[in-house]
Amino acid sequence: MKAPPDTWQRAQAWVGQGVDAIDTPSLVIDLDAMERNLARMATFARERGLRLRPHAKMHKSAELSRLQMAQGAVGVCVQKTDEALRLAAAGVGNIYISNEVIAAHKLERLAGAVRDRAARFALAVDSAEGIDRLAAALQAAGVHEAAAIDVFVEIDVGQGRCGVPPGEAALALVRLIHQHPAMRWAGLQAYHGGAQHRRGAAERADAIAASAQAVRLTLDALRQHGLHAPLVTGAGTGSLVNEAASGLWGELQAGSYLFMDADYATNERDAASPVFEHALFVKSQVMSRSADHAVCDAGHKSHAIDSGLPRVAHPAGLVFANGGDEHGVLRAAAPGAPLPALGDTVWLIPGHCDPTVNLHDFFVGVRGGLTQGHVERLITIDTRGALA
Amino acid sequence: MKAPPDTWQRAQAWVGQGVDAIDTPSLVIDLDAMERNLARMATFARERGLRLRPHAKMHKSAELSRLQMAQGAVGVCVQKTDEALRLAAAGVGNIYISNEVIAAHKLERLAGAVRDRAARFALAVDSAEGIDRLAAALQAAGVHEAAAIDVFVEIDVGQGRCGVPPGEAALALVRLIHQHPAMRWAGLQAYHGGAQHRRGAAERADAIAASAQAVRLTLDALRQHGLHAPLVTGAGTGSLVNEAASGLWGELQAGSYLFMDADYATNERDAASPVFEHALFVKSQVMSRSADHAVCDAGHKSHAIDSGLPRVAHPAGLVFANGGDEHGVLRAAAPGAPLPALGDTVWLIPGHCDPTVNLHDFFVGVRGGLTQGHVERLITIDTRGALA
Repeated sequence: MKAPPDTWQRAQAWVGQGVDAIDTPSLVIDLDAMERNLARMATFARERGLRLRPHAKMHKSAELSRLQMAQGAVGVCVQKTDEALRLAAAGVGNIYISNEVIAAHKLERLAGAVRDRAARFALAVDSAEGIDRLAAALQAAGVHEAAAIDVFVEIDVGQGRCGVPPGEAALALVRLIHQHPAMRWAGLQAYHGGAQHRRGAAERADAIAASAQAVRLTLDALRQHGLHAPLVTGAGTGSLVNEAASGLWGELQAGSYLFMDADYATNERDAASPVFEHALFVKSQVMSRSADHAVCDAGHKSHAIDSGLPRVAHPAGLVFANGGDEHGVLRAAAPGAPLPALGDTVWLIPGHCDPTVNLHDFFVGVRGGLTQGHVERLITIDTRGALA
Repeated sequence: MKAPPDTWQRAQAWVGQGVDAIDTPSLVIDLDAMERNLARMATFARERGLRLRPHAKMHKSAELSRLQMAQGAVGVCVQKTDEALRLAAAGVGNIYISNEVIAAHKLERLAGAVRDRAARFALAVDSAEGIDRLAAALQAAGVHEAAAIDVFVEIDVGQGRCGVPPGEAALALVRLIHQHPAMRWAGLQAYHGGAQHRRGAAERADAIAASAQAVRLTLDALRQHGLHAPLVTGAGTGSLVNEAASGLWGELQAGSYLFMDADYATNERDAASPVFEHALFVKSQVMSRSADHAVCDAGHKSHAIDSGLPRVAHPAGLVFANGGDEHGVLRAAAPGAPLPALGDTVWLIPGHCDPTVNLHDFFVGVRGGLTQGHVERLITIDTRGALA
């Protein structure tokens, strides 16, 4: 009775199609804008002699990781073991898990990938137990090579989440790392995510000045015991000009610069920052109309709302209100202004890139702009749902 | 140089394993609790002579859809065309898209599935254009059979989103549906999602009393023109006792009752409602500790936060604070109370089931409780990311 499902299964976008034909809601990259962001960030890092290791927790894509590395990035960061292993399987050669891993079975899988040289890996630690467990996993996997994995000691530079306190506390961990030949102490992880979302440029500068003081205190404490950190790594899109100017950080982990989002756009831009453009959009369609509002087919299963609702990029003059999981409610920003008609396209700028990307299985890459452009390629979101 | 990735690819849970071995973060169903919820809801509907058509936008699973239908549900609801087509491909035989579809290519695919009898389908409409477009798609697909698809006219009963106003407005749409033999007018869609989250039972009763008045007004207007609605469908977990008692609704669309979530648990329970238990949990692990807090590995890529942060189910005495996309920060509810240690398991109750489920690829079904139980089966989340 049933026909083969491929006659009516979804086809969200085909290469070569015009933008109009992209099904909704879809996550669309303006490739031209993204490539400008990519180039501006590469230039910024190169001109300052800083390493760039973009955070792939944001785009979750092996293809975009490779694109960043082709423009000079030394590798990528991730937050989760599964992200690291999937990107390694997809050919990304240098991956830093900038986060603590404690589960023995996660460390077993990571150690297996280290042994098999699936990529060059690094890991953050903030406890003796974390180091002991990593050592046990490397030993069990038969990793005998010296410096087979890089290990960063995380210090809490203001985020109040992971990391040991600044100063002396790092010393015992560095010494413990040095007891394990398979590990190479790679330096300090010093990341203050919260600082990036303070609206004023001066507020962000103040927050990172405090982070820098925490880094300095730790470097001094280590130096007094003859330990010289090879590198300090951290910084994100919202604050990176401050870390870059400090003379302490040698590696930037920014991720969002590639796409930007409505939350970052709300920040007062720092004059020293490259100009990054919105390159990530949710294409949606009006599927219901009433006298005073339109309803589009994108709700918070299409875009994350942890950093606020999406902004309407086009058409102008619309305000997006929460319509639940599958709907967005659009009202005129000014009384009497026109509302879109049934079937009209509405382009949204997500409030926050990272968890929005994690809702989708692929990006639709558009060349030539969102009005006249065409679908150049589909980009797989390889580590979508890679939570473990 | 690279080993086959399957030596270190993820294995989040294996059938037969104890609960302790489930990797984190994972979405875990307490199957015993879920089955009690399933039975209580089936009894509630059966005793009142009401049809039950649970909303599969919540669990997004063909297996759970079939389980509900095996216990008497007449079919399931979904919100999206792709959800309907994927569930049909997975063998669910009766599917109502309780939402408007306007895109021609979505309607083409739906019409193809109608023609191929992939399932019995229904669709909501709230505009003449929606009906015209559906008619065109059915014609183009070669659907000649009478009453090949059920069509409900949606009225706005208080949600302020989709639907025509109560009263006369439905009349023209019903008449238009009657002009197309391939469509069967199935009745009214009358759903007030917002009413379910009002905290007091009396507030919810008041909201649904107003919805009932809107339904009555519409039924009367139609009746004056000789049109008798075959069915009124709607209602959700938070308010269903009110719709059930009204004598107007003949079909309940509740979804969350199967799992429950922290948001529904905040509601004052209506004495007439079945008791539904929490059956959905995120298993997480402490991966960083400091003097005053613990950090677990579940953030808002693991659970949705649109209806608030998760509650900690176990261990007792912990408060969950937002730690961003990949972390949760746990603090003692009372000063000096113990915090979990590195590596400890923390069980979370998500704030909102539906968008939490949409973050995961499968459920880990546990039998025998979260302390001593084992993994009985993995349940695929078939329509995860089915947005179009």
